[in-house]
Amino acid sequence: MTAPQKAHVLLTETVKKGGCAAKLPAGDLSAALKSLRFRPLPELAVGADTMDDAALWDLGDDRYLIQTLDFFTPMIDDPHEFGAVAAANALSDVYAMGGQPKTALTILAFPSQVLSLDLLLPLMRGAVEKIEEAGACLAGGHSIDDDTLKLGFSVAGFVKKGEAWKNSGAKPGDTLILTKALGTGTISSALKNKQADPDWIRAAIASMTQLNRAPELLRGLTVNAATDITGFGLASHALHISRASQVNMEVMASRLPILPGAVDCLERKVLNRAHRTNADYVKEEVAYESGISEAMRWLTVDPQTSGGLLLSVPSEQTDLVLERLRARFPLAAAIGTVKTFSASYPSVRFTN
Amino acid sequence: MTAPQKAHVLLTETVKKGGCAAKLPAGDLSAALKSLRFRPLPELAVGADTMDDAALWDLGDDRYLIQTLDFFTPMIDDPHEFGAVAAANALSDVYAMGGQPKTALTILAFPSQVLSLDLLLPLMRGAVEKIEEAGACLAGGHSIDDDTLKLGFSVAGFVKKGEAWKNSGAKPGDTLILTKALGTGTISSALKNKQADPDWIRAAIASMTQLNRAPELLRGLTVNAATDITGFGLASHALHISRASQVNMEVMASRLPILPGAVDCLERKVLNRAHRTNADYVKEEVAYESGISEAMRWLTVDPQTSGGLLLSVPSEQTDLVLERLRARFPLAAAIGTVKTFSASYPSVRFTN
Repeated sequence: MTAPQKAHVLLTETVKKGGCAAKLPAGDLSAALKSLRFRPLPELAVGADTMDDAALWDLGDDRYLIQTLDFFTPMIDDPHEFGAVAAANALSDVYAMGGQPKTALTILAFPSQVLSLDLLLPLMRGAVEKIEEAGACLAGGHSIDDDTLKLGFSVAGFVKKGEAWKNSGAKPGDTLILTKALGTGTISSALKNKQADPDWIRAAIASMTQLNRAPELLRGLTVNAATDITGFGLASHALHISRASQVNMEVMASRLPILPGAVDCLERKVLNRAHRTNADYVKEEVAYESGISEAMRWLTVDPQTSGGLLLSVPSEQTDLVLERLRARFPLAAAIGTVKTFSASYPSVRFTN
Repeated sequence: MTAPQKAHVLLTETVKKGGCAAKLPAGDLSAALKSLRFRPLPELAVGADTMDDAALWDLGDDRYLIQTLDFFTPMIDDPHEFGAVAAANALSDVYAMGGQPKTALTILAFPSQVLSLDLLLPLMRGAVEKIEEAGACLAGGHSIDDDTLKLGFSVAGFVKKGEAWKNSGAKPGDTLILTKALGTGTISSALKNKQADPDWIRAAIASMTQLNRAPELLRGLTVNAATDITGFGLASHALHISRASQVNMEVMASRLPILPGAVDCLERKVLNRAHRTNADYVKEEVAYESGISEAMRWLTVDPQTSGGLLLSVPSEQTDLVLERLRARFPLAAAIGTVKTFSASYPSVRFTN
């Protein structure tokens, strides 16, 4: 045993890329699997085809079962905080469907040759505290010995049928609202390169560990579409809503909430592979008004770990939605509007 | 791109250990997490505490929701077959609870620097075919770029409350029945070391890709307890039933169904780390009658990938259960009996 030595390893030094930046590029995945045929069952109300956040299964009464999973490598060094981020990130997809998470199963890959098993306790404690804060419970899981640490959860929850949020219901005229600030991707890369100010890291961790508990704040209001922002970045997720809802979108770059330090990092080109694969994935369908800086363009494809929710709400409810959200999400902002679909315009257009 | 070169990589050459042998040792895990506190919710009928195969969630009507997940590295070289094994293995936990799987979410870690993305299609095709053979459907998932290939699924299913099989209901006098032959661990290691006869590999793959669809065969009969045999091996799983049910067990080594080549491999000490950690995990509570060969002792802790179900059934139903099972599981065998708990006897005793 080399436990004393292992105990001082920084988590982010044990991986090449951290958090949602470690996703397989969306373009590569869909190209590789485009001829894969599925036979969905009739009870599957939302499956893999619309690239929504989670699956919805019709329970045959007034409820959908929501199912989702997510896992990734560490993007921060403290095991307790990384556990909390991994849990908040996985739980988020249930919130993105308008639901309430109830159970979580652990997905753990642990490098027992590199890291001390003593790290497991704070890691899982951080996760369990966050799961229980969400009103859910840990119900099991699976762990393997692996070369690098990965943690995530398969989460199940429930939502009443009339209250489910899909990514396919955005309507022309809707306001687009983002609940959290952008920039966790570049700040995580800066952290790994030892270029991040401690204040930036603290703000990013506070954002990544915050639960996306928006559904309970918005009961009684209308949310026409919703998704959460992950490693594919804001532009990709806006694109997924626009495709699933058959609408166009206009997003005002100047209105985007931004984590402290993020623009600074992006101006210095602190990027990871996901910035480039995300930019490549959206390039045919996303356009930028001239005058939007290069740093801001990178921000729109910045891979988020435990990012905010992107909500499409009727414009007349904008102020009410923002007021309720800001009790918990002080940086929540109206960032754009939904437009009628037109094939001659880009699906998503960023304006100044 | 180095695709032509990458296309000829053998999957098992890209990993250090394959399949369920890559599990973290059960002893290490429980030691590291023994002070972790959970707050289960009242609807959680079976959680992580009894080391059962899956979680049971009370849906508030006559059904339990069953949730489980499993994933691992390749133990065989063909991507289509590995996809099928990964799916059959994950689905198995739902069968081990007496249920019917309905949805599966993919857990994929793919080494895009080592393997061609062209492998994704046969890999996922093998999995989807198996999921659909089970009457379930693929409903989503998550994939990351990683150093080694891992594939698995988070599976959800349903079971009527009166028909759920737990690991906690074994009764003294019950017969223990095993549905599949043992030995996938040693044969996978032999395959990796290029010491396996092609016939052994074929038989092991046929066993690992077979769905554990026993519940539908046994409708109307009584199954007091059930579990499926995984990387922890037969002895560990028998021990988990004995602990959860508060009984002792006697297992006849001579009755164990064995895959062709397995004893041969074990006699030549073709072992992996899981053989040793499993033996270590059970050593205080499992005993062997003198005269049981060393190879047979290793077989009892051989890490199974997509192993069989271990069922505890009332002795008077033994013949009927075996007759029904053998339609699909020709090697199913009565391997032992459940005994009244006594602290002065080992929890599980292997006899000749």
